Order: sequence, then structure tokens, then C-alpha cells
Amino acid sequence: MKIEKVCILGAGTLGSRVALQAALSGYQVTVYDIKQEALDSSLKVMKKILNQLEKFSEIKAEEGIQALSKILFTLDPKVAVEDADLINESVIEEIDIKEKVWKQFGELAPEKTIFTTNTSFLLPSMFADISRRPDKFCAFHFHDVFYSKVVDIMPHPTTDAEIIPILEDFGRALKQVPVLVKKENPGYIFNSMLMAFIGAAGKLLTGEVASIEDIDRSWMVNFHMPMGPFGILDSIGLDTAWHVTHKMPDRASQAFAQLLEKYIKAGKLGEKAGEGFYQYPNPTYREINFLG
Amino acid sequence: MKIEKVCILGAGTLGSRVALQAALSGYQVTVYDIKQEALDSSLKVMKKILNQLEKFSEIKAEEGIQALSKILFTLDPKVAVEDADLINESVIEEIDIKEKVWKQFGELAPEKTIFTTNTSFLLPSMFADISRRPDKFCAFHFHDVFYSKVVDIMPHPTTDAEIIPILEDFGRALKQVPVLVKKENPGYIFNSMLMAFIGAAGKLLTGEVASIEDIDRSWMVNFHMPMGPFGILDSIGLDTAWHVTHKMPDRASQAFAQLLEKYIKAGKLGEKAGEGFYQYPNPTYREINFLG
Repeated sequence: MKIEKVCILGAGTLGSRVALQAALSGYQVTVYDIKQEALDSSLKVMKKILNQLEKFSEIKAEEGIQALSKILFTLDPKVAVEDADLINESVIEEIDIKEKVWKQFGELAPEKTIFTTNTSFLLPSMFADISRRPDKFCAFHFHDVFYSKVVDIMPHPTTDAEIIPILEDFGRALKQVPVLVKKENPGYIFNSMLMAFIGAAGKLLTGEVASIEDIDRSWMVNFHMPMGPFGILDSIGLDTAWHVTHKMPDRASQAFAQLLEKYIKAGKLGEKAGEGFYQYPNPTYREINFLG
Repeated sequence: MKIEKVCILGAGTLGSRVALQAALSGYQVTVYDIKQEALDSSLKVMKKILNQLEKFSEIKAEEGIQALSKILFTLDPKVAVEDADLINESVIEEIDIKEKVWKQFGELAPEKTIFTTNTSFLLPSMFADISRRPDKFCAFHFHDVFYSKVVDIMPHPTTDAEIIPILEDFGRALKQVPVLVKKENPGYIFNSMLMAFIGAAGKLLTGEVASIEDIDRSWMVNFHMPMGPFGILDSIGLDTAWHVTHKMPDRASQAFAQLLEKYIKAGKLGEKAGEGFYQYPNPTYREINFLG
């Protein structure tokens, strides 16, 4: 089977990015949301990204115009899913809402449609049955699309094995590196490792072994990276990190979740809030003398 | 106090690198070992590094010649430590041997000498008393000196606080980023985080969640790094990783230690052995199509 038409459910940050890359890769795309404002904002996000891509000579202006002409924004679920070969769902990370969406689109979608969810921390098996097409249901999880170009393909126990290579090819067509998560795992591959090292950083901080800055310096200098774990936490959002950390039963994670909670209660959610472990827009770790 | 003369105990890889950078930074350096072959090999290592530094225009040829002229290689402990302001000990990671060395040099060293150990996984408090100068004893731990330019300063409970700023300044003079480990912690700062994310990678592999290659791809693409956890393990050495992992009590670490043991028994120790998780000198993760 060949994928030609793609339906994106949820016009948020990630949905908009996936939609745009799909259009840039030549696919017909529909973007569905329940709010007109979300659709309007999605178009704005796309135009902003296209400007950036042009600025860094990754695309030409006419490619951007052509891509946008391939995208249909709609509030009508029937229009959205009409003739779709693949759905990629990026609605909010709430089980009730995702269930509702998959029940609705499971009824509306054509027989051929492959169902994929872009969930960050939930599992495809939670929604496979309600979609009424568990064999066609799989997680297909993007990270950032334009900077971190990896897509996780994570089937659940009754996903039809034949859709895996289709998703791998589709991922590559979207300029992503496809990786296979052979069994369901919350956080896929990368997030498991990310949360482990961030947890270790949290333990160093709550255990008063080292300062935020020295922990970040150690990571940045050893790995030649532009930020360390606390800079990364600021960019992820401390609230998002707390959602994952506070569920972990071990003592170190609990201590770190408590620390995150203090920051969150003080409104220090990270870069988006202007302050987290560092202050933005000019955090000290970006200063020239931070590393000496 | 001003550091002018530095005594390096142990002419292995790390000792040689620290000695060379100290000489490049203008210090008088003695390099002590118990074997002439170790001293000969140390000089070769230094010349090789100087060639590399010249090649990448980091130093001029005459700077290299001048640096080598500042280094005295010796088998005589008295000559090694004569008038030394600081000892940096990089002998093998065995408690008995380090104890013997610190007993010997604690007796020989001048009153003024600051005692530092470059141990990777042991703690300064293990050797502070036997050196008879616990207040002057501190861990001063380099990573790679020329690529990963960070130095951990880790006092033990009775280290005199006054030597910390001296070590910070000395670290900076050696072009390192000094980071303070406020209390004794095996693995300092970076290794705690490194082992945490590598442990998470091991858990993904032993749990059959993903392949070695897909785990590495996820890390490399997301962090724009030239290798992932298994490539990093190959460069660290699987035997070294096993030494740390097999002591951790949790089930995932034990499962990973068992996997490492299988590789080690098959002679697959990593890059140094020609094979680990990948085959060298041309591991697949360095191939152009690995991420394609």
C-alpha cells in the first residue's frame, strides 16, 4: 500500500509540524481540530517554520508555498478523514479525549486507513480497541520533526506486522530516522534514556552533591553539548518533567519530583515561563564565560 | 600559595595527559612510575598528542618542544616529589596499590605539597589518612584533558577548604572547566549521569524493547551526537562498564551486567579489542547511511 493522503488530528505544535513536513514531502494533508483558533494558529506556526527553513536555505520559497497549498485545514471530521491512507493523532495527552477521538474516527475512517498515535507517554494498546481497528493501530511518535528527526514506531501486541515497513518508509519520506520499539514502552527509546540521566542529575542536586551549574557544565563539556540536564529541563518544561518523575516510586525520583514541585508552585516552569532553573531569554549557561 | 612544580604519579594514559597539559601551561613537571617502559611509553603518548595538537593548530611546534623540556621522567620517588607543590596520582585503580603509593609519598613529600588523586571510582577518604595529610588531600579528577576538558574537585570530609580555590585556579590554568563535587560521590558528577543513561540503554536492550542500533540512533539524532550509548560503551570499554554495573543491586543493572559479561567472555571488550557492540575500526554507526 502506498500512502498518499495523510490526516492529522490535533493542530497543536507537534501536529502542525508533522503536517508541514508531510506536505513538504509531497503528501496531501488535512489538519483537523475542534477549534478554528487552533487551525489559524497552526497556519501561523507553519509559516514561521517555513521562514526559518528558507533562512537556513533548507527549502526555497516556492517549496513552502507549494507545501501550504497541499494542506487543508478543517473543523469537519468527515472532510478531514475522507480518503485518508493514514491518520496521525496528536491531540492532548488525556486518555478520555484520545478515546473519544479514536472512537469517532474509527467509525468515520475508510477501511484502508492506518491509525497512528503521536502520544508521548501513553501506549497504543490503550486506544487500539476503541478505534475498532487494533490491527491497523500503531504508535508513530515524532520528536520535533525539524531539529530532532527521529520517529518511533511502536506497535502494540496485536498490530499487524505488515504496517511496520509501511511506517518505516513513510518516516523516511518525512526525512526522519525511523526506530522500532519492539514492545510497548512508556517513553519509547529516547525518553527512557533522557529521563534516566535527568533523574541522575536531579539526584546529584537534591543530594547536594553539586550545583545546578556544575552539573550542567559537566555534561556540556564532556559531551560538547550546548546545554546540560537543567537547561534541557527548562526547555522541556518542569511541569512535563514532573508528570513523568512523580510517578516513579524510588526515593531519588520522589525527592526530585518534590524539588520540581517547588519550582512549579513558584511559577518557574522553564523557558516558556521566563524562568526555571535559569532565567530567560538569556540563561547563564549560554554566556561565553559559563565554561570558564 | 602558588603552584609551580607538579608531580604526576603513574605514567599511564591519564597521567601522561595531565603531565603534558601542565607542562604546556608552563609548570615544571615530574612524571614518576615504577617501570622504565611506562616512562618510555608515556613520552611516546605525549609526542603523539603534541602532533595532533599541532595538526589542528592548537599549538605551535616550539610550544611542544618547550613543554617536553619542562618534564622530568623518573623512577626515583625522591627526585619525583622534590619541591613539589602538588601531587596528582593516577596509578592503577586498586586500593592496595594506591594505599602503598600514598603511604610512601606521604612520607617523602615536602610539607607544602597538596595531595590529589585522579581516581575514577574510588574516594579520597580511602587514602587521606594513610597519606598522613588528610587536610591536604582531595580528589582532582580529569576526564580526557584534551577533548573533555572538565576537572572534578572532590574534597572528603576533612579536606581543608582553603585548597579548593587553589585547585580551581590550577584546573583553569590547565584549560579545564573545574566543577566542585561538594561531597564524596562515586563517579563524581558526569559518570553518575553517564552510567544512568547507559543503564537505561542496557535495560532497553536486555528487555528487548529495541535493537542496539535503534537505541544508538535515537540518542544520536535527538542530541546530534556522533555516537549513542553502545558506541560510547565500546569506547569506554565493556570491562570498565561491567566493573561499575555489576555492583549495582537493582534487577536491570544485574541483567545488563550479565549481558556485558557475555561480550567480555567472548573477548568483545570494545573498540580497544576490535569488537564490542560494534566492529572496529569501521563501526556501522560511523557509516553515512546509519541514520538514513
